Amino acid sequence: MNAPATISLAEELRADFPGMVTRDGAPWHYLDTAATAQKPREVIDAMSRALGEDYATVHRGVYSRSAEMTRAYEDARRTIATFLGGREEEIVFTRGATEAINLVANSWGRANLKPGDRILLSQLEHHSNIVPWQMIAAETGAEIDVCPLTDDHRIDLAAAEEILTEQHRLVALCHVSNVLGSVLDAPLAADLAHKVGAKLLLDGCQSAPHMAVDVGRLGCDFYVFSAHKLYGPTGIGALWTKGDILGAMPPWEGGGSMIDRVTFEKTTYAPAPQRFEAGTPAIAEAIAFAAAADYVAAVGIERLHRHEAGLVARLRRELGAMNDVTLFGPADSAGIVSFAIDDIHPHDLGTILDEANVAIRAGHHCAQPLMDYLEVPATARASFGLYSNDDDVDALLEGIARTRRIFGKA
Amino acid sequence: MNAPATISLAEELRADFPGMVTRDGAPWHYLDTAATAQKPREVIDAMSRALGEDYATVHRGVYSRSAEMTRAYEDARRTIATFLGGREEEIVFTRGATEAINLVANSWGRANLKPGDRILLSQLEHHSNIVPWQMIAAETGAEIDVCPLTDDHRIDLAAAEEILTEQHRLVALCHVSNVLGSVLDAPLAADLAHKVGAKLLLDGCQSAPHMAVDVGRLGCDFYVFSAHKLYGPTGIGALWTKGDILGAMPPWEGGGSMIDRVTFEKTTYAPAPQRFEAGTPAIAEAIAFAAAADYVAAVGIERLHRHEAGLVARLRRELGAMNDVTLFGPADSAGIVSFAIDDIHPHDLGTILDEANVAIRAGHHCAQPLMDYLEVPATARASFGLYSNDDDVDALLEGIARTRRIFGKA
Repeated sequence: MNAPATISLAEELRADFPGMVTRDGAPWHYLDTAATAQKPREVIDAMSRALGEDYATVHRGVYSRSAEMTRAYEDARRTIATFLGGREEEIVFTRGATEAINLVANSWGRANLKPGDRILLSQLEHHSNIVPWQMIAAETGAEIDVCPLTDDHRIDLAAAEEILTEQHRLVALCHVSNVLGSVLDAPLAADLAHKVGAKLLLDGCQSAPHMAVDVGRLGCDFYVFSAHKLYGPTGIGALWTKGDILGAMPPWEGGGSMIDRVTFEKTTYAPAPQRFEAGTPAIAEAIAFAAAADYVAAVGIERLHRHEAGLVARLRRELGAMNDVTLFGPADSAGIVSFAIDDIHPHDLGTILDEANVAIRAGHHCAQPLMDYLEVPATARASFGLYSNDDDVDALLEGIARTRRIFGKA
Repeated sequence: MNAPATISLAEELRADFPGMVTRDGAPWHYLDTAATAQKPREVIDAMSRALGEDYATVHRGVYSRSAEMTRAYEDARRTIATFLGGREEEIVFTRGATEAINLVANSWGRANLKPGDRILLSQLEHHSNIVPWQMIAAETGAEIDVCPLTDDHRIDLAAAEEILTEQHRLVALCHVSNVLGSVLDAPLAADLAHKVGAKLLLDGCQSAPHMAVDVGRLGCDFYVFSAHKLYGPTGIGALWTKGDILGAMPPWEGGGSMIDRVTFEKTTYAPAPQRFEAGTPAIAEAIAFAAAADYVAAVGIERLHRHEAGLVARLRRELGAMNDVTLFGPADSAGIVSFAIDDIHPHDLGTILDEANVAIRAGHHCAQPLMDYLEVPATARASFGLYSNDDDVDALLEGIARTRRIFGKA
């Protein structure tokens, strides 16, 4: 049995999420929050108001509603900065974490990488933290090293220390693995990177929604994450960049709002962060993103983390007791449990679970190099959010038992 | 007086737009639709449903709601393609028109431009159709030519014909000027570009919302536009690319969903358009974008065009009769009237009009080279949408009279 505190969090909050029921009004056992989180009514309503009675453009209207919208948009930037422990001028709104990494690769990377320079990634990175570096490495002549994993599937920072040299300009690592839930020792990674003069980029897609994040304490230089994984809207994410690094970065996308003065002879650019926000921004999305951060902060990220840790511990305990189940990742994984059942393909499991209103993810999770490393084509992944509860775990376990019966395994 | 048909369009539709009233419930005379359009309830509700009871990720879930969401997302792509007269595989969803132009510059441009190549722009382009080309020209060694304007402020295609050479690889022009409303003769521009072997890119931000667009008839190779100017959400836009041009373009942003197979040794990419949509897409925004296109199609774009043309004609007639007013742009401008009043700065006019709930735009409209050409620091701009009506024009004219009195001019 779980502690009453764990039960009460989900029970208290689940009704806030219109997505957590099926078409028939039955509970939906949504265990794919690591792919994308459901959104509370507060976020959806913030979006509706921003697109409705409050709607106007930002940064340019001479009328009052545009000035109000500009304040709301810039307040959203401050809210996101505060959520991460950063300053508002350090936040660039992007389309999502993927675009944020591409921005760093194309702006900072193109300006700072040259032939002979090295980038350290890890074996468990999401494709979004691999492909942009492969593309910029091919362009600049830099080379990529890959940090291996420990036996319990963490990024092996002892190995990283061995690999790192004065040629390394950047270390780009997943703060929390989207497949395994492994949590990186970010302050140690930052120390190792900084010791050789490299910058540290953290892919925070799976840490921002699951644990308290303070970029100062983490020691990173870049931190990226997506709103839609933090109970916020699609179409927006953020890049946080430490101190004056952002100010020295050249522009990437050109257009309106990011310029100082345009002539056909010579164009000059606005200071950061505006320099990196070309065109009309995702206004309503920024405001709803801030509403999501406020919602999570009001719930309490430590409480949310304890709640999810309880569910992870129970599911790992139950799956760990099954002889035909392989568990991936460490015991203290953040909100995520990846597993495989002998002789049942994860896709078949996922399809059969769907019939019982249980939604898990089955596949390579945009981390094919990790699948190669684990020597599996795919894993089944159950991932939790603040609305997840023991009924969801029960439904998953019943679904697994049913799948075994269908496959003639029980 | 206007024809009854004109009056009835706005009267019939205005109630669909929750943004078209002030905080006190009074009519808001919103004349800044060229900056961004207000959104009908249909669009806002589509967004709410997509973020609420329908919400799931796309392209990867093994559960049914994700499959339904994937269908809705790809249906949205088809709706946008149909709206433009194109095919769904020719549509890439981007953050907006600005990002779409940056995508063409960085993908097509980097692959196709070399030292000595030339790009033809015009004097009236928006910064979003200048700065990306300046950036890619600086990188590739290509050079930019600028097409002048006719006396009535259209892009001078006779001059373009004189300028164009076999060295020109790209002609990138505004289909409708965001400052002047001037409509380009796109088929002629396409002929001129194609005659020298260049591609034609059209910035359709101000044409898609104001006139029937058929990319086949226009003859262009690239067409970009933003949802938020077409009564749709912020955070999304589209790039249409003719036939097999898109298929030959290299990827720009790297990440999940745009790959075929990732290893640290070698990564291969998905076919277009997926190759250009890295990361979790703007799912809810795509669905609401399609709802906006459906809304406009249901109103009837020809009817909308006639309605706005009636308002433009009346406003130009009234302003044209004032001795101290300079009108910019041609008589048949699409939904936009730019003007200046002697001895009254457009910002002062905008501020005073705001007190009477009239919202216009005053400034350089992200078109500083055009301001230099017109030899003004700024213009005042009134722009219309399908919800605009004669009361809005009356309120603007009254506000101008009041401003004159405040400035001691009357």
